[in-house]
Amino acid sequence: MISLAELQRRIDAGELSADAAIAQSLEAIGAQDEAIGAFVCHADHARAQSAGPLRGIAVGIKDIMDTADFPTEMGSPIYRGHRPRGDAAVVMLLKQAGATIIGKTTTTAFASVDPTATLNPRNQAHTPGGSSSGSAAAVAAGMVPLALGTQTGGSMIRPASFCGVAAIKPSYRLLPTVGVKCYSWTLDTVGLFASGVDDVARGLAAMTGRGELLLPSTIATPRIGVVTQDFAGAPEASGAEALRIAAKAAERAGASLRELTMPAIIAEAWRAQPVVQEFEAHRALAWEYRENYDAMAPLLRARLDDSRDTTPAAYDAAVETADRARQALARVFEDIDVLLTLSAPGAAPHGLASTGDARYNRLWTLMGVPCVNVPALIADGGLPVGVQVIARYGADAQALVAARFVEQALARR
Amino acid sequence: MISLAELQRRIDAGELSADAAIAQSLEAIGAQDEAIGAFVCHADHARAQSAGPLRGIAVGIKDIMDTADFPTEMGSPIYRGHRPRGDAAVVMLLKQAGATIIGKTTTTAFASVDPTATLNPRNQAHTPGGSSSGSAAAVAAGMVPLALGTQTGGSMIRPASFCGVAAIKPSYRLLPTVGVKCYSWTLDTVGLFASGVDDVARGLAAMTGRGELLLPSTIATPRIGVVTQDFAGAPEASGAEALRIAAKAAERAGASLRELTMPAIIAEAWRAQPVVQEFEAHRALAWEYRENYDAMAPLLRARLDDSRDTTPAAYDAAVETADRARQALARVFEDIDVLLTLSAPGAAPHGLASTGDARYNRLWTLMGVPCVNVPALIADGGLPVGVQVIARYGADAQALVAARFVEQALARR
Repeated sequence: MISLAELQRRIDAGELSADAAIAQSLEAIGAQDEAIGAFVCHADHARAQSAGPLRGIAVGIKDIMDTADFPTEMGSPIYRGHRPRGDAAVVMLLKQAGATIIGKTTTTAFASVDPTATLNPRNQAHTPGGSSSGSAAAVAAGMVPLALGTQTGGSMIRPASFCGVAAIKPSYRLLPTVGVKCYSWTLDTVGLFASGVDDVARGLAAMTGRGELLLPSTIATPRIGVVTQDFAGAPEASGAEALRIAAKAAERAGASLRELTMPAIIAEAWRAQPVVQEFEAHRALAWEYRENYDAMAPLLRARLDDSRDTTPAAYDAAVETADRARQALARVFEDIDVLLTLSAPGAAPHGLASTGDARYNRLWTLMGVPCVNVPALIADGGLPVGVQVIARYGADAQALVAARFVEQALARR
Repeated sequence: MISLAELQRRIDAGELSADAAIAQSLEAIGAQDEAIGAFVCHADHARAQSAGPLRGIAVGIKDIMDTADFPTEMGSPIYRGHRPRGDAAVVMLLKQAGATIIGKTTTTAFASVDPTATLNPRNQAHTPGGSSSGSAAAVAAGMVPLALGTQTGGSMIRPASFCGVAAIKPSYRLLPTVGVKCYSWTLDTVGLFASGVDDVARGLAAMTGRGELLLPSTIATPRIGVVTQDFAGAPEASGAEALRIAAKAAERAGASLRELTMPAIIAEAWRAQPVVQEFEAHRALAWEYRENYDAMAPLLRARLDDSRDTTPAAYDAAVETADRARQALARVFEDIDVLLTLSAPGAAPHGLASTGDARYNRLWTLMGVPCVNVPALIADGGLPVGVQVIARYGADAQALVAARFVEQALARR
């Protein structure tokens, strides 16, 4: 993988020109993407910008985000050849920070569940996960140091876990979703993939102009609550093992750990998340579903078929449950700094029939809290399994610092 | 004006065909819009749908909302000829309810403050207000029974007051903003203009599928808190008179009234609103502002120039202030049903140099609470002045019922 932090260091030190850094990504895409299929389209030639913290950083953009310079096809034939007039807000934030947009990465149709043809760079017989399939794979394959994705259920943290890369799904709305195709306005969150926690922190700090998101030179020792999310069912052996190993490594590194059982309202919110998601999707994708029904991806269409009778009253009740759960979760964070939990049930499933299961992610998306994936182990077949570090709403810096702590603890194992 | 309720009654009774109702709007547009300039473009021929509560209802759509069948130009040459692939969520909600989209109404550039050429149908020497200029004027001139607008500061309630029509800015996110050009994601709210309170209630109920928004046969007598918004400065004589008359009429009709002074945090939120609005606009309109600077409308561009140094910390503080103010406002509503306050400082300003002042609106947009404009008096020059009725967040039905009470009380005066 290409480390963003290392690239910045070499560019700053004059060891590497920003243009050479961009050229290196173009070469890697040329060499590898035919096999992996992470990009829908990409630049043939590209230059670095001359200034900004992300100069020389080539970035892959999930293809549900508007770009004026590339088509934006939403993973669907309904948007074949679609060319937006302008750039999404997050694309502009990257450009303003000096980055070079190198291409568009594959997405399941409208960031839902129908798999793309993208392969997992760790083991090409497996899915990279979804819906941000191409962005996770492009970083994992060493094609780009940074890529943008989105999460509505588990579309950032799950593919990051499957591909063995770091990712942050920031607090809700820390990054604007303007110009990003909407699935659910209460849930959709833009996030970043990069090779390690320091790299995603640098990307997020540069995009937001929030220097406090950069990792401090001294990483504080966190108070960690370990959560197994029993309400979501049991994990596979590799998922459970990843959580056990990460917890043990953190404890050995000095963190105080305790197992936490979530209040009942939290489990209720976990059950409410699909109601919010699909009710809003029926409105957000009304034109696609109602006027292009036959062209809709089959798994997404079936989901929408199944949820079309959800009433406003059921939606209101789900939203109310989520509000109460957010308050309860805020109280959980009074005694701990972060939660440590599963990123996915286990390693990436075999084949491309499914992008995997978001059951350990969807609650946290609904809560709006920052989640960071940290790779924890390599299971059979060379497949990574990660864990996620979760902080209270708005405490993205704290999530990153604790994730760095866990990452370092795992490296010392 | 065309009453939506009356059209529905006549169509249901078989006195008028749905197609004839649509034809009537097309005729009115043909007869009047050359003088008023409420439409950017409209259908030459249009048919009614055969079913749905809004069959036979011709609707004007503010031109920042995506439509597949009409260009969507955002009031800006930057989007000249722009044709979105699909329809905005609210456009689809209208279609699903049986309405006919008749055309696109004028908007200030990106729903900001640069006036359009639209004239006020009540007195063509005056502005109709903005930013939803065309939608307010189209309803006021009797061209359509229903039109959609948006409010970020005061872009619905102010033009409704200036044009003498009813309007609801619903609770934040009651209507989805998917496919509506974003200015500020915390503030932007889609709403409806129609001839009277019953008409906007019918439109909103049909779009949302929420029957509870229809007015009940018996209108309850509300407990009203009268608010002068001193923190926003003094109104003009006609604005003060409108509020006095509406309060007196409501009291005479049996409502319990008391003057309320808002807690200090509310005034603080009033001051914080522009910080939230412009910080988000810099991100939402980054492509337009940074890559099309010369083509930006001058007043909007100056606003963005003036606010470009707002820091994330200042924004965070403003958001935090708004959160605390929302909690304080919820407590204000423990003892009253609705607030009654100014819709605008006074009647529509002369000329087209300004769309008027949003100072009595912007707080309530930030609070996310439902606001309904009720025309209260006709000032010099035949210019209407309205008042607004405001309920707690989520109590849109209550806002409509109390607004109907005030409307009836004023009619009996």
